[in-house]
Amino acid sequence: MHVILVQLALILIIAKISGELCERWLKQPAVLGELVGGVLIGQSVLGWIPGEDVFLHQLAEIGAVLLLFEIGLESNLDDLFKVGKQALWVAFAGVVLPFVFGYFVAHALGRTVMEAIFVGAAMTATSVGITARVFTDLKSLHTKEARIVLGAAVVDDVIGLIILAVVSGMAVTKVISWSAVGLQTFMALVFLVGAIVIGVRATPFLLHWARKMQTRAALSSSAVIFCFLLSALAEMVQLAPIVGAFAAGLVLDKTDDKVHIEQKIKSLADLFVPVFFVMVGARMDAQMFNPATASGRTTLILGGVLLVIAVLGKMLGGISVPGKGLKRLTIGVGMIPRGEVGLIFANMGLSSRVIDNSLYAAIIFVVITTTFMTPPLLKWLVSQHRPKGGQPAETHSTPVVEVV
Amino acid sequence: MHVILVQLALILIIAKISGELCERWLKQPAVLGELVGGVLIGQSVLGWIPGEDVFLHQLAEIGAVLLLFEIGLESNLDDLFKVGKQALWVAFAGVVLPFVFGYFVAHALGRTVMEAIFVGAAMTATSVGITARVFTDLKSLHTKEARIVLGAAVVDDVIGLIILAVVSGMAVTKVISWSAVGLQTFMALVFLVGAIVIGVRATPFLLHWARKMQTRAALSSSAVIFCFLLSALAEMVQLAPIVGAFAAGLVLDKTDDKVHIEQKIKSLADLFVPVFFVMVGARMDAQMFNPATASGRTTLILGGVLLVIAVLGKMLGGISVPGKGLKRLTIGVGMIPRGEVGLIFANMGLSSRVIDNSLYAAIIFVVITTTFMTPPLLKWLVSQHRPKGGQPAETHSTPVVEVV
Repeated sequence: MHVILVQLALILIIAKISGELCERWLKQPAVLGELVGGVLIGQSVLGWIPGEDVFLHQLAEIGAVLLLFEIGLESNLDDLFKVGKQALWVAFAGVVLPFVFGYFVAHALGRTVMEAIFVGAAMTATSVGITARVFTDLKSLHTKEARIVLGAAVVDDVIGLIILAVVSGMAVTKVISWSAVGLQTFMALVFLVGAIVIGVRATPFLLHWARKMQTRAALSSSAVIFCFLLSALAEMVQLAPIVGAFAAGLVLDKTDDKVHIEQKIKSLADLFVPVFFVMVGARMDAQMFNPATASGRTTLILGGVLLVIAVLGKMLGGISVPGKGLKRLTIGVGMIPRGEVGLIFANMGLSSRVIDNSLYAAIIFVVITTTFMTPPLLKWLVSQHRPKGGQPAETHSTPVVEVV
Repeated sequence: MHVILVQLALILIIAKISGELCERWLKQPAVLGELVGGVLIGQSVLGWIPGEDVFLHQLAEIGAVLLLFEIGLESNLDDLFKVGKQALWVAFAGVVLPFVFGYFVAHALGRTVMEAIFVGAAMTATSVGITARVFTDLKSLHTKEARIVLGAAVVDDVIGLIILAVVSGMAVTKVISWSAVGLQTFMALVFLVGAIVIGVRATPFLLHWARKMQTRAALSSSAVIFCFLLSALAEMVQLAPIVGAFAAGLVLDKTDDKVHIEQKIKSLADLFVPVFFVMVGARMDAQMFNPATASGRTTLILGGVLLVIAVLGKMLGGISVPGKGLKRLTIGVGMIPRGEVGLIFANMGLSSRVIDNSLYAAIIFVVITTTFMTPPLLKWLVSQHRPKGGQPAETHSTPVVEVV
């Protein structure tokens, strides 16, 4: 028992310290620190945390489920339908271009079709958490560019989850069946639409009952139960559990109890989510980046090529957006950071042995590098556009989010 | 993965539904429903939840740690020193009498000395959670009797934890060494006093640093880390992890951030604690209570004898309390409910194979029956003392807790 308690304490300590160092000294998102901290205490450096411990692995998976549940709760279903053509353009171009680039480059480098699809898929999803966080840190969450990026990131997340559903199905069967891809896409859409349409109608009744219950925490427990069951249901129809968790969050975002539920889920996420990111880091073999070895050089070259593709794909998606008076470069750079979903692709690919350690490390390299490069780039671009008074060049009459 | 999600959802569903049925229809504490619900879905009835699953077992243990952490946060260290002689009398008499009665009766029934000590120990600890909850439900938390019972229950909890430390040490070594008992008691006291004296001085600095951190949830994470490390440290010196968790709670109760930390810990406890109680129920073999079998009759007779001892011991402790104008019967009955600590004794005894299934079931029988019998008895006694207006007979000028 005490081994588990010490390991959990250690994971939380490293997550908070490295997260804090990242935020305070490097001015980077905390998630980057959690990943790097995980690498440090993981199998390849200090070896304090086993990479394949069953309990920690399952706790980490629950962390991924709670993270996507929280992102779903923070996302607004109506915004998905109301987003203007610009956000949709940026989202679709920002998914299609990196996927196509990633697929063809990986294939040209001699990788199998399966590997090329995983690489392309891992290149697609902008991290809405990191993006929103960076804009908040820059106090630019209320600019038009930030709104387009955030809207696009939400759409992008849903497209990414459908791609995830398709790719995770292929990871199980290990073959590419185009009819299966069609079926998976269909099932993903049926599950998401079904979960949302039925969920939006059913959850008010469910929460109505939970509210009337006298027993402690009936409401937040109902939300967690709903999330876990939808995650399990998603996995039962061969989708990833996080697809269900995201749908559960989107559905509960529509209810009156959203604020109360979100507060409770955040407390749970505070404990579980760092376990996920630290364990992702702990599983990574840092020797993969060692330039003194042949395989290390391969990874660095592969990671470098993928990084160029990842950045170019999103930048072109942003720059090509229709509309007047937009800071297109800011939009493109705002779409660059990859995060959770890319890591989940990498994890899934490694677990199912579809991709090898070098591709896994190259994808982690892209995630770390894009997360690391975006804040300074965005900071520089936003300050370029600001008049001398230091105020944002273009402000909206009603700030979307209260900026302190 | 989806098996774990379904099992967790199932445990939470059964905890909330059976807890609600207990509170609403039977007017009993929710914990009783969680136990009975656990028996229902556990190995001996429906078999939906495996009794010995490693992941669920470890999650349940974390639940026990978080429960005692929460109880520690709710307890006040100063009240432990400030309680009047009445609370101390009730606490000590209420520990010594049930222990002595339990030990000698079990020994007289042909049980070994080890078993007799476990039975005596399991009879000692009044459940402060159940007691406080019952008085709150009866809107009598502000009466003098309730304050004595609550004060005594806190002292009782600490004595119970020291006994737990002693007994858990014996459970590991499987022999009774009186010098070891002395050493264990000494170590328990040193650990508790040391953790509290050093903790009370060190935590303000720890939390001062955590407050200044920018990264998300640094404060509540620090509290969880402190709890897990103190729990692990307790186990490393052969104490039960919950001893450390309780001490961690007591220490953090003294800090300025107590309210914020308690709120966050409650959200975690909402998820983890029901897993502990449902798993305790799920491990129980309901066939033990089958009166159609010889062993079932043995358990029922044994459980009945232990129940008489458990009730008499606490009642005598309450009735004998010095002081004028007290409703001594109310105090005695208020001390009857056994809960978490008794279950933890039973669990520990079964895990370390010190007690057999029949004694385990008999202790569970006592916990369930005392929990079940107290609310109607207390309700009847409190209503007896009330004047016709329905107001409490004796109220304190300043209510300790706001009663809605």
